[in-house]
Amino acid sequence: MSIPTIQWTGRSLKIIDQRRLPGKFIFLHCYRVQEVWQAIKTLSVRGAPALGIAAAYGVVLGLKSFRSSSRERFEQQLERVCTYLGSSRPTAVNLFHALDAMKQVVKEHPCCSPQALRHLLHKKADEIYNKDRYVCRQIGRVGSRLIKNNHRALTICNAGALATADYGTALGVFYTAQKKMKFKVYACETRPLWQGARLTTWELLQHKIDVTLICDSMAADLMRQGLIDLVIVGADRIAANGDVANKIGTYNLAVLAKYHRVPFYVVAPKSTFDHTIKTGNEIPIEHRSPEEIKRCHHVWIAPKNVKVYNPAFDITPCKLVTGLITEQGILLPPFRKKILKFCSR
Amino acid sequence: MSIPTIQWTGRSLKIIDQRRLPGKFIFLHCYRVQEVWQAIKTLSVRGAPALGIAAAYGVVLGLKSFRSSSRERFEQQLERVCTYLGSSRPTAVNLFHALDAMKQVVKEHPCCSPQALRHLLHKKADEIYNKDRYVCRQIGRVGSRLIKNNHRALTICNAGALATADYGTALGVFYTAQKKMKFKVYACETRPLWQGARLTTWELLQHKIDVTLICDSMAADLMRQGLIDLVIVGADRIAANGDVANKIGTYNLAVLAKYHRVPFYVVAPKSTFDHTIKTGNEIPIEHRSPEEIKRCHHVWIAPKNVKVYNPAFDITPCKLVTGLITEQGILLPPFRKKILKFCSR
Repeated sequence: MSIPTIQWTGRSLKIIDQRRLPGKFIFLHCYRVQEVWQAIKTLSVRGAPALGIAAAYGVVLGLKSFRSSSRERFEQQLERVCTYLGSSRPTAVNLFHALDAMKQVVKEHPCCSPQALRHLLHKKADEIYNKDRYVCRQIGRVGSRLIKNNHRALTICNAGALATADYGTALGVFYTAQKKMKFKVYACETRPLWQGARLTTWELLQHKIDVTLICDSMAADLMRQGLIDLVIVGADRIAANGDVANKIGTYNLAVLAKYHRVPFYVVAPKSTFDHTIKTGNEIPIEHRSPEEIKRCHHVWIAPKNVKVYNPAFDITPCKLVTGLITEQGILLPPFRKKILKFCSR
Repeated sequence: MSIPTIQWTGRSLKIIDQRRLPGKFIFLHCYRVQEVWQAIKTLSVRGAPALGIAAAYGVVLGLKSFRSSSRERFEQQLERVCTYLGSSRPTAVNLFHALDAMKQVVKEHPCCSPQALRHLLHKKADEIYNKDRYVCRQIGRVGSRLIKNNHRALTICNAGALATADYGTALGVFYTAQKKMKFKVYACETRPLWQGARLTTWELLQHKIDVTLICDSMAADLMRQGLIDLVIVGADRIAANGDVANKIGTYNLAVLAKYHRVPFYVVAPKSTFDHTIKTGNEIPIEHRSPEEIKRCHHVWIAPKNVKVYNPAFDITPCKLVTGLITEQGILLPPFRKKILKFCSR
């Protein structure tokens, strides 16, 4: 079963408005780059790979009405559009990789006219989209080897079809394994924005996978009882040493997994690796609005005047990671040299 | 500043309806034992010490309209009322201790008439109430020695004025320390029922204590950055070996504290200890409705048909506890003999 998370219609970027799931299944049509920016900022579209695709088509939309024949002005406009899109969310590196790939197209064609460049950029966006679909399948095949019959896996946030152009990274592992194995998934609800409760459970139910929802604070209790065999999560950026930035709460699970001797795997395509930064400490962490925690829809959970700490991501040090599941195989520690080799392939 | 969590008016048990905080400050008047049962079951009144007090006055209300002069029928009615109240919430032992204390009054006065017994039971309920007030102050004094200037403490759920007849156990430590020290408290929101977000932040703001609200999954990130100096939590039942049953998420914090070498203290009056059970494995754990997790007020967060795991409490093994803060001092590990001595004093 395929979920049309993100699609190019020929005129617009059509995305599932994930803020409305699971209650409503509604599409957003972005005709302008500003609408793509807004969709990224408000998490209508989210998930590292999907953000890369959205950014690439965002560039296409940002140059759609460019009519001049001046190459210089085209390049200036491209730069403005990329800076603008890059300001939407700082942590997921896929977004910046996609913008870099788009800029690279222009650099590699120094003699092309703006019109020809627009055509090439469109082709590049399609390529990023198609590559992601292929990579999801590859990752699914690689990771599914880790799932054994009757396993109980734990995941957080949503690294599934709703985070990619195909069937996901961490959840893609389950979708592939499902063909051969019977297993159970526990989904952490993923406060404050409930991507686990809203999106992962919805996706897994669509795929008829045995899923149980828990609060984030309950994972420890399950592990203490020996009810978790492995943890599988996605990533938003992976540093050269293997440190992982992912949804807030991931580091919590990594510590719990270490303490309870449960394997902890991170699933990510090459586009999530950032070999230009040495460690997780250099990864910029997005801090989001206090109201995401204090309010649930229009109901105030907490006093309006209370201070809040609301980072969207945390850093899991490489020493807590059992393995990195990629489209080209599983990288095992020590990671540094293997990541360098993998990224330069 | 005193918060009138639970009070006997002469005719009814008057309690703050905690389900409505922080938005609304409303009192519930319980005139019948059924209303007390309901208030306990639905968490209008909660917190181990407050549950003991509510149960004691619940017995008073359950015998209010007893008119016969038959002692035998009085004892039967008492037994029925106690069994009924005991069916409200299974984990907090204070509730059962209070019921036992009420039954003990009747046993100790074999010649008293039902009318005289009703008078004695009322006196006993008042005594449990007053004892709790005294114990809170003692605990505050004992625990406040652990708070140093500029400390950053972390707590979960609400072990404060709203959980007791006075200013609380874990939060009582802060209220006492406040007179001498400047420090900061991080409050875990405490999913699924947000006792931290709704009650603890509200209480601490009332007391002008510097409080920051976090999601439960963010505690690990704070500890990794060295931003937590100690963890202080309450308890619902403590076994003879020092294993602690407390709000779900407590064990998670205990593992994190161990990993990050942060002291982890549990604050509890004698009435929370249960020396009749050997270890935490024997403590009954209440499992609550899936809708507490799937729904926030009338909004469905998760698909209606998804399975849910929703234990109200977890068990923290004694080996993760740095110390038990009681009204008679801090117990340090190994706990078994010290708990036995403390309970038999």
